[in-house]
Amino acid sequence: MTERPVLDLSSLHQSLTSPVSESMNLLNEVALRYPQAISFAAGRPYEGFFDLDSVHRCFETYRAYLVERLGDEAAVRRELLQYGRTKGIIHELIARHLKTDERIEADAESIVVTVGCQEALYLVLRALRRDESDTLLAVAPTYVGLHGAAQLADLRVLTVSDTEGGVDLDDLERVTRRARARGLRPRACYLVPDFANPSGQSLSLPLRRRLLQRAAELDLLLLEDNPYGLLGTQHLPTLKSQDEDGRVVYLGTFAKTGLPGARIGYAVADQRVGGAGAAGLGGLLADELAKIKSMLTVNTPPIAQAVIGGLLLENGCSLITANAGVREVYWRNTEHLRRGLVERFPYGRAPSVQWNQPAGGFFSVLSVPFAAGDELLGVSAAKYGVLWTPMHHFYAQEEPCRQIRLSVSHLTAEQIDEGLDRLADFIQDQSSACPAPPPTNVLVAKKGRS
Amino acid sequence: MTERPVLDLSSLHQSLTSPVSESMNLLNEVALRYPQAISFAAGRPYEGFFDLDSVHRCFETYRAYLVERLGDEAAVRRELLQYGRTKGIIHELIARHLKTDERIEADAESIVVTVGCQEALYLVLRALRRDESDTLLAVAPTYVGLHGAAQLADLRVLTVSDTEGGVDLDDLERVTRRARARGLRPRACYLVPDFANPSGQSLSLPLRRRLLQRAAELDLLLLEDNPYGLLGTQHLPTLKSQDEDGRVVYLGTFAKTGLPGARIGYAVADQRVGGAGAAGLGGLLADELAKIKSMLTVNTPPIAQAVIGGLLLENGCSLITANAGVREVYWRNTEHLRRGLVERFPYGRAPSVQWNQPAGGFFSVLSVPFAAGDELLGVSAAKYGVLWTPMHHFYAQEEPCRQIRLSVSHLTAEQIDEGLDRLADFIQDQSSACPAPPPTNVLVAKKGRS
Repeated sequence: MTERPVLDLSSLHQSLTSPVSESMNLLNEVALRYPQAISFAAGRPYEGFFDLDSVHRCFETYRAYLVERLGDEAAVRRELLQYGRTKGIIHELIARHLKTDERIEADAESIVVTVGCQEALYLVLRALRRDESDTLLAVAPTYVGLHGAAQLADLRVLTVSDTEGGVDLDDLERVTRRARARGLRPRACYLVPDFANPSGQSLSLPLRRRLLQRAAELDLLLLEDNPYGLLGTQHLPTLKSQDEDGRVVYLGTFAKTGLPGARIGYAVADQRVGGAGAAGLGGLLADELAKIKSMLTVNTPPIAQAVIGGLLLENGCSLITANAGVREVYWRNTEHLRRGLVERFPYGRAPSVQWNQPAGGFFSVLSVPFAAGDELLGVSAAKYGVLWTPMHHFYAQEEPCRQIRLSVSHLTAEQIDEGLDRLADFIQDQSSACPAPPPTNVLVAKKGRS
Repeated sequence: MTERPVLDLSSLHQSLTSPVSESMNLLNEVALRYPQAISFAAGRPYEGFFDLDSVHRCFETYRAYLVERLGDEAAVRRELLQYGRTKGIIHELIARHLKTDERIEADAESIVVTVGCQEALYLVLRALRRDESDTLLAVAPTYVGLHGAAQLADLRVLTVSDTEGGVDLDDLERVTRRARARGLRPRACYLVPDFANPSGQSLSLPLRRRLLQRAAELDLLLLEDNPYGLLGTQHLPTLKSQDEDGRVVYLGTFAKTGLPGARIGYAVADQRVGGAGAAGLGGLLADELAKIKSMLTVNTPPIAQAVIGGLLLENGCSLITANAGVREVYWRNTEHLRRGLVERFPYGRAPSVQWNQPAGGFFSVLSVPFAAGDELLGVSAAKYGVLWTPMHHFYAQEEPCRQIRLSVSHLTAEQIDEGLDRLADFIQDQSSACPAPPPTNVLVAKKGRS
């Protein structure tokens, strides 16, 4: 026998040693090391309405619906317990939900049900990555998982500024044209138009219209990721609902509006695919995504789909009312956070701390008078017992910046108060230790670009 | 507005136009077009024991187990309904199952619970693919999904002959050395040692020992995929149970021994990973796979894991007895198929048809006196009402060969009889239309190599 083999990390896929991967690990490790700390870092949904019995009830609701549709008990058992349709089994209910809640007219055949939205993201990026020239644009700051999925697909990401109120269209055009001049092929731009992670920012309605127009002019697809759209005090029309020419691939999830533990997401991909080898008259992009899915996870667990299917059925396929309670919790927490910030950092008084005011979702951004990186997060966790997320991770850059992300989605008012007291102490101490900086505007703070 | 965009298939990832992808589509399409045909093609588990009520019962069993372990109802709700541990929540039960049923001593921390075994396969291949020189070896004929996962990871696959009784060790060595001489880096060899898909073949115990030895000499990992091991009349020790030096990555699934609709698989990856950037004293390969999973599906649906967890708990973590009924069905069908073949193709009488005699699993291979490709499958479906799988798909080659795969896992005795009558008519007619061939031995039939 030879020696016990040791795999060298440098011989494994580069995503494993990327800054993104290291970021995610580091943040998880800090959270694990300080379980008693109050966490403004975790972006988990609120658990107060979780109900295990509802899992059974929703499953049975969906089962009864199938019995009515399929007639035959054996067919129902097959649908729920056997290997199943690659694109999923609750696609028609999702189409009804999209029509009801988002005024999106989606052909059910254009929907691929996935294991969380993360799989949908990967399927789309894998499909769009043909060779080294293929490039994704992403509005920065960006959800870290976007970079993760792109790395698994070996897909280059160029970032676009969000300074115009969610996306800077001139920067979008500049980055696209520069990339093309370099021989790259920008395929699509990824963004979260509603209550983005991490910025909390939303695109105004006029900006959405101009974005669609500009994307058409630049011949870019738009990847619209919408996990938080129903969880705010405003509800603007999605890009997809205004997408007349099939420019938008829509990415959805029930992790925040349904049940995280079901891990059900989906893509709406109604783009036509043509050319040699394409199916019949040209199939849908959804069918190409399904081919990839068949090589990746085969199909999304039908028993998990059934639970979400039942939830949709019990609510007439609308999740707006179904989420009234949790939406109120999120908004109450957000307001509580703001009041707490105002109390602790009154305007015009040092240290200079500012924050933005998202109209919904899970996240707010705080600008602080010092570079708030991973090292200081460690100090904050160990000495002050409070966790937050350094914003530089969302710019996929290593150099810390003067912003932190705060999430209050899963906290109580008492936890927010106590957490803010600790955070204020930490910020006060750090500010005393650092030279006074020039004031920064959260919305025009520094952006990374690769 | 510009024209409605049409994506050209040639601009999408190459896996979408690969022979593998086209094979899978073609086979699906034939099955959909002839729903009335008797299918020896589908490798689906038997449905006769499917029970929807057991889904609820198993979930509750696992819930009760969690209540006992975690004490706190809120913690149980969080475990089952919130975002969860990337490596999964039923890892300890899977470790007990592996110890009980397969005498595999797996550290629970080395187990990653995945969305079916297909995701586990992808995670491993993605991890092992650093650059273009990385190469996977696979014993051919090979499960089609292996090629699919490899294509998503842009990983080259070289095939190794199975003529020595499941794997030809000299060929393994030859292919490895030749690949290295070409500057390639063979990382691992994939195989299904028990009742392989599609060949039905199993490695003898001495061959398993020699394979482990040879893999060590050649410094290759072995990827042991074992979906059918508990579903036969013999039960040989897995490679992993004899793996003293961490040479084997073990891939498992509950799709055949539990419930396909839960989509729960797993990898056991206890290899050490060292080098710069590796965690602490060197982490486990399982932790690297988890990093990839966090970018791909985040975590496996806990509610689906709970159902399998409950199933394991209800059976003392052993699935041998739990599968006694279905194992008997598979064996009865296999025997029925053989008797039916003997009756319809008596030895020494034209047309010359031969078959192998697997001791378990879902599949048998039939050699026929003509090249049985996709076109003839179409004829068989349309004119004779019987489906089977052309074996050339499992060699990832386009040229048809004189073998077909038969599966009887989901059929009744009556369906097998009727299907064999139709198949015999088809073979008789085709053989009359073709010149008589030299006799072929199923186990030494032609192999593809790329």
